[in-house]
Amino acid sequence: MATISDIGVSAGINILSAFVFLVVFAVLRVQPWNDRVYFPKWYLKGLRTSPIESGTLVGKFVNLDFRSYLKFLNWMPEALRMPEPELIDHAGLDSAVYLRIYLLGLKIFVPIAVLAFSILVPVNWTNNTLEKTDLTFSDLDKLSISNIPLGSPRFWTHLVMAYAFTFWTCYVLKREYATVASMRLHFLASEHRRPDQFTVLVKNVPPDPDESVGELVEHFFLVNHPDHYLTQQVVYNANKFSSLVAEKRKCQNWLDYYQIKFSRNPSTKPTTKVLLLAPRVSCLYARESLMHYYIMHFPYFIKQTGFLGICGARVDAIDHYTSEIARISGEISTEREKVVSNRDAIMPAAFVSFKTRWAAATCAQTQQSRNPTQWLTEWAPEPRDVYWDNLAIPYVSLAIRRLVIGVAFFFLTFFFMIPILFVQSLANIEGIEKAVPFLKPIIEMKVIKSVIQGFLPGLALKLFLIFLPSILMIMSKFEGFISLSTLERRSATRYYIFQFINVFLGSIITGTAFQQLDNFIHQSATEIPKTVGVSIPMKATFFITYIMVDGWAGVAGEILRLKPLVIYHLKNWFLVKTEKDREEAMDPGTIGFNTGEPQIQLYFLLGLVYAVVSPILLPFIILFFALAFVVYRHQIINVYNQEYESGAAFWPDVHGRIVGALVVSQLLLMGLMSTKEAAQSTPLLITLPVLTLWFHRFCKGRYEPAFVKYPLQEAMRKDTLERAKEPNLNLKSFLHSAYVHPAFKEVDNEGDESDEDLVSTKRHQSKHSSKHSFSSLAEDPERSLL
Amino acid sequence: MATISDIGVSAGINILSAFVFLVVFAVLRVQPWNDRVYFPKWYLKGLRTSPIESGTLVGKFVNLDFRSYLKFLNWMPEALRMPEPELIDHAGLDSAVYLRIYLLGLKIFVPIAVLAFSILVPVNWTNNTLEKTDLTFSDLDKLSISNIPLGSPRFWTHLVMAYAFTFWTCYVLKREYATVASMRLHFLASEHRRPDQFTVLVKNVPPDPDESVGELVEHFFLVNHPDHYLTQQVVYNANKFSSLVAEKRKCQNWLDYYQIKFSRNPSTKPTTKVLLLAPRVSCLYARESLMHYYIMHFPYFIKQTGFLGICGARVDAIDHYTSEIARISGEISTEREKVVSNRDAIMPAAFVSFKTRWAAATCAQTQQSRNPTQWLTEWAPEPRDVYWDNLAIPYVSLAIRRLVIGVAFFFLTFFFMIPILFVQSLANIEGIEKAVPFLKPIIEMKVIKSVIQGFLPGLALKLFLIFLPSILMIMSKFEGFISLSTLERRSATRYYIFQFINVFLGSIITGTAFQQLDNFIHQSATEIPKTVGVSIPMKATFFITYIMVDGWAGVAGEILRLKPLVIYHLKNWFLVKTEKDREEAMDPGTIGFNTGEPQIQLYFLLGLVYAVVSPILLPFIILFFALAFVVYRHQIINVYNQEYESGAAFWPDVHGRIVGALVVSQLLLMGLMSTKEAAQSTPLLITLPVLTLWFHRFCKGRYEPAFVKYPLQEAMRKDTLERAKEPNLNLKSFLHSAYVHPAFKEVDNEGDESDEDLVSTKRHQSKHSSKHSFSSLAEDPERSLL
Repeated sequence: MATISDIGVSAGINILSAFVFLVVFAVLRVQPWNDRVYFPKWYLKGLRTSPIESGTLVGKFVNLDFRSYLKFLNWMPEALRMPEPELIDHAGLDSAVYLRIYLLGLKIFVPIAVLAFSILVPVNWTNNTLEKTDLTFSDLDKLSISNIPLGSPRFWTHLVMAYAFTFWTCYVLKREYATVASMRLHFLASEHRRPDQFTVLVKNVPPDPDESVGELVEHFFLVNHPDHYLTQQVVYNANKFSSLVAEKRKCQNWLDYYQIKFSRNPSTKPTTKVLLLAPRVSCLYARESLMHYYIMHFPYFIKQTGFLGICGARVDAIDHYTSEIARISGEISTEREKVVSNRDAIMPAAFVSFKTRWAAATCAQTQQSRNPTQWLTEWAPEPRDVYWDNLAIPYVSLAIRRLVIGVAFFFLTFFFMIPILFVQSLANIEGIEKAVPFLKPIIEMKVIKSVIQGFLPGLALKLFLIFLPSILMIMSKFEGFISLSTLERRSATRYYIFQFINVFLGSIITGTAFQQLDNFIHQSATEIPKTVGVSIPMKATFFITYIMVDGWAGVAGEILRLKPLVIYHLKNWFLVKTEKDREEAMDPGTIGFNTGEPQIQLYFLLGLVYAVVSPILLPFIILFFALAFVVYRHQIINVYNQEYESGAAFWPDVHGRIVGALVVSQLLLMGLMSTKEAAQSTPLLITLPVLTLWFHRFCKGRYEPAFVKYPLQEAMRKDTLERAKEPNLNLKSFLHSAYVHPAFKEVDNEGDESDEDLVSTKRHQSKHSSKHSFSSLAEDPERSLL
Repeated sequence: MATISDIGVSAGINILSAFVFLVVFAVLRVQPWNDRVYFPKWYLKGLRTSPIESGTLVGKFVNLDFRSYLKFLNWMPEALRMPEPELIDHAGLDSAVYLRIYLLGLKIFVPIAVLAFSILVPVNWTNNTLEKTDLTFSDLDKLSISNIPLGSPRFWTHLVMAYAFTFWTCYVLKREYATVASMRLHFLASEHRRPDQFTVLVKNVPPDPDESVGELVEHFFLVNHPDHYLTQQVVYNANKFSSLVAEKRKCQNWLDYYQIKFSRNPSTKPTTKVLLLAPRVSCLYARESLMHYYIMHFPYFIKQTGFLGICGARVDAIDHYTSEIARISGEISTEREKVVSNRDAIMPAAFVSFKTRWAAATCAQTQQSRNPTQWLTEWAPEPRDVYWDNLAIPYVSLAIRRLVIGVAFFFLTFFFMIPILFVQSLANIEGIEKAVPFLKPIIEMKVIKSVIQGFLPGLALKLFLIFLPSILMIMSKFEGFISLSTLERRSATRYYIFQFINVFLGSIITGTAFQQLDNFIHQSATEIPKTVGVSIPMKATFFITYIMVDGWAGVAGEILRLKPLVIYHLKNWFLVKTEKDREEAMDPGTIGFNTGEPQIQLYFLLGLVYAVVSPILLPFIILFFALAFVVYRHQIINVYNQEYESGAAFWPDVHGRIVGALVVSQLLLMGLMSTKEAAQSTPLLITLPVLTLWFHRFCKGRYEPAFVKYPLQEAMRKDTLERAKEPNLNLKSFLHSAYVHPAFKEVDNEGDESDEDLVSTKRHQSKHSSKHSFSSLAEDPERSLL
């Protein structure tokens, strides 16, 4: 049991380290050469240009304005200054609502903390139960429920407080749900025209021997939505095509680099070395397959010959890449023809667009076919949000994937320690020496040996935990969700469950998750809350330390962006050749809903569980929420660049998890109370989860539809408005290429933008012809647009 | 432990009693005076006329054709002869699919029984574990799993069998789900035009200070479904009105009776006695309120004066009732004006009809308003199926009602014994003597005393069990479901849960439900299946007896229709005055889904639980299913008259409960096996419920939409067909009065049918005026149809 001074020291250290982070951040962010690391969002928006290009030579790299160092915390008020509507406009609704989760934490826990400290703490403090016992205890424990004697009538205070906290939390949750729902509806309503408003994703198109998928979809919707159907876009399996496009992009980049080099120094023609592995074989097929083999398996080795190539013939770089680009362009167009014309490359899914939002809304919400596993319609995700690989999974396979992943996640959560223990048992000094005997002399050195021995056992676990979010993301992808937003939401749910079991329960009841599971199975339903509940007050100090290290220091570290900073400068020095490269090296990243939200939820859980038991935890959590709110607000304004916009579709998950945490806290309190011989409170405590769950169902019915459905009233209003404003709008051309596979799109755009001289006429032709064959598929009987 | 001969005797008795029932039935059904009891369905269809009217005097009452007594079982092949499509046409899809539940029982259990008797029974029999122990045992137990020694490898047989039974059950279930789903879709598709295909029920219309509900609904749908909206019908709170209509119906009946009496015997004018409690008070209000007070509280006392009245003035009966009818008709029209014009009598709900099925299908499946608790749309139930009283419950009230009923049902299930024990403690001889001292001499008589003492303690419980379905139905009504079919389905679910806990678990682990609950809470998750599982083999004989008494004899008793028979003849002798009365006395009743289905489900549960443990139970269950199938098929063809047609909407419930029973059986087997020291089978047994639950989810996704949604493809097909067939159809007039409150309808129809001479001109006028005021509300801007 840590004393208050122990906690104080720990808090001091953590506050100091957070402070150091913030100071370092304040210094680094005003340096011009870090500008792209700390303000990428503004670069992407085109609102900021590099300060390096202006100013003196020294001023280019070091900020000499000392006043800017003095105001080193002025980013905080700056971050808070931007009003919410502007923030939504700047970073999207997802980000703005994500910040509200932190605010929600403050809204819930500040009043609870005030109440707890003015009532619960005095009630706990004015006992001397702990002093009477032989147990060692600290002043911190005197503030907790442990200090109340068994069967004391003082437990009524805790009971009343549990009710008060529950009602307050539910009240805030309900108000927040209502606010977010109306924000979402307002956002959807005030948005300008977007393709996904008119479009529905149709999956599981049944196979038809006589018609292609495109024709089939068109006929089906012409028959079943005759007045509303506008156009459709079939989905291609374009994985090979996209890799070719990526390939070409890389060559283009090299070409740009050498051209700049040449224009700066026209005297020496730049040269590059080319491996002669892929000679101009006349036989098209052989060359292609050889190319693809190498592209697939050794992309860097083959292509970065100019950089890494040591052997090989030295050729003129500009000529080489120009011809390479022409060649790949040719291949791209061939591949494109193949994809578009080959029936097997067309997946049984399509994006169907309608003339009005109303029609799209009705189609997305209704069942189309007698067979409920065919012609499944749902809202098309935003084009950026589509996860293209999963669009063609049939129903039965989807059901089996769910089962497989469900079972796999169960084993991952409860048995992940087994492979890690196995790896740890292998990864000892002797094992390494056996595997790589020539390293033996190095390993046997004392310093290295001790490092390995101290480092290795933890390494496997650490690596697993680092890769866990990616593993969960892969699981979600395998499960077959079709948009990035759902993938992230699903991963977040799984990550939270994992943390709940392995961090929360794992810290309270020591032991692996599997041992806990085994215990729980062999305990009665009333025993489980008791077992967990009893240990809760004892773990308060542990969680306080956890909050300070993981929360405070973690958040302060987040603002420093150490990893992106290092990577940016490394890239900048070694890899960046063109302006485009520099932009790509910027990598602003996203909020990372799938890792960030579960972390916040853990704090909600801790806060709610400890609110009645050991209120001393609350100030630490409040500080976390406040700091995180400011930091993330700053990051969202200046750094992150969301990949998609789901319109805060994640809120039902957030709400549900907080309600879940509330129920857990109530059950654990019930368990704890029953060991304190305050059994007369049990019926009153049982009522709490019943009411909370009822509240959840009520909210679900009341607000959740706003996040999954699109009311016809709204759709109709927007349609009418639009018709009045723009009576001659050509919606079809607007939607024409909205849901084309991004690789196709890139080729088309590039063709429009890139220097026409560099492109061979052949490619030019093929571009047009492929575009034609493309649009012919998307064509529909000509009908006027309302 | 009963021996095989004990079971044999019991079976003999029960078979004999079932046989007696069937013989009595065979005798009674051929008697002409019972014709209306045993063939009411045909009377209602107008396909059968009373045999009493033809034939000789004796032949009218007793069937003298002795050949018909000899073929006393010929109703069985007759019942089986009608092919299913004809049955659907004759009795509706609900009834036909209901019969399939019994067939499903046969399909599942016959192969299981064959397999079990050819493999499991020999494996169990060829042990001598029981003989080695000191326990008393019977030959029956030698057939069960109890005869296998602890830890024997023979348990692998049971494990494999559990898998085989599960796969077979799932296979049959899936096939059956597919069949029923396609039957439903076929039924909906081949049906002729019905108002509910075009109509959507709109609930929770928001209040508007400027517009009436009718106007508001019309405007909302004209704006949001401009091309599809046809007409609407607001819902009135017409409870008072309906009681007036019922009142008038009774008077009309008396009038008919006296007129027939008078026409047969013109010499004496029939007279009746009238109590002078309600004189012709000139003040309309006073008279009305007095009238209503009496009508509400003493309807029989006041109105059946002609029958029961002893005191009072004797008046001419025909004159009296003619004037009474005129008076009530006047009141009806006043009340109607009041209901139609009074804004408070209009409930915030409406039936909205569309021009096409397609439009109704889209509207029913989509969300209309921003606020998801307003403008809630759902499929309108069939007009007969509507439960009018619940149409106007607001969202919040609905949520609270759900909570209240949920809690109430929990207490009903687990604590129902408490009030019964309380009543039992009061209802003893001393208690009665104290309450009604003047009965003391009678009660003290020895015979009566012993009857009371033997009878009273069970009476409260028996009464409770008799009224339980009604209690559950009242709970469902309070919960706010809007159609009779959902009410019945909900009650069935609750009744099944009650039976599962109080009959199934209550019989296996003796004790009240609350004691079980208490035990379960204090046991671990692995203990519960063990506790229950261990007791299962021992209770086999009890359940065999239960099946014979409740199943065999119960079903045979069902065909006898003893209660309707007695009531019909009583009514016929004492109450029936006119032909209409006789028709009403017929009371064919319905299948009674809310009591019948849970009973079948209990047999599924028993069959699945005992299939592996004591296969000896299976033949008894199979016999039940076979007998019940024949009996209910006969009853459905000849007797029952369904009140509504839901298109087999109950099948997902049936399927779900069988899957639930399967999971329970697997868990209990797991518990049992773990006590048999066959723990190595646990992982394999855990896989079973996981797979079964996954199967359930798969089926839910695959087939359930067919029962809750209406595919647009179907709707469009029917619309197109109809447009081609009947291009000039006036749909508006077809829908005009489809969803008028039945009381309004009755008045309108009556006016059309009844003898115009008997009706005063005033009423005639009022009828027209009220009709006018009515239709004016239902009117909408004139637009052409399609």
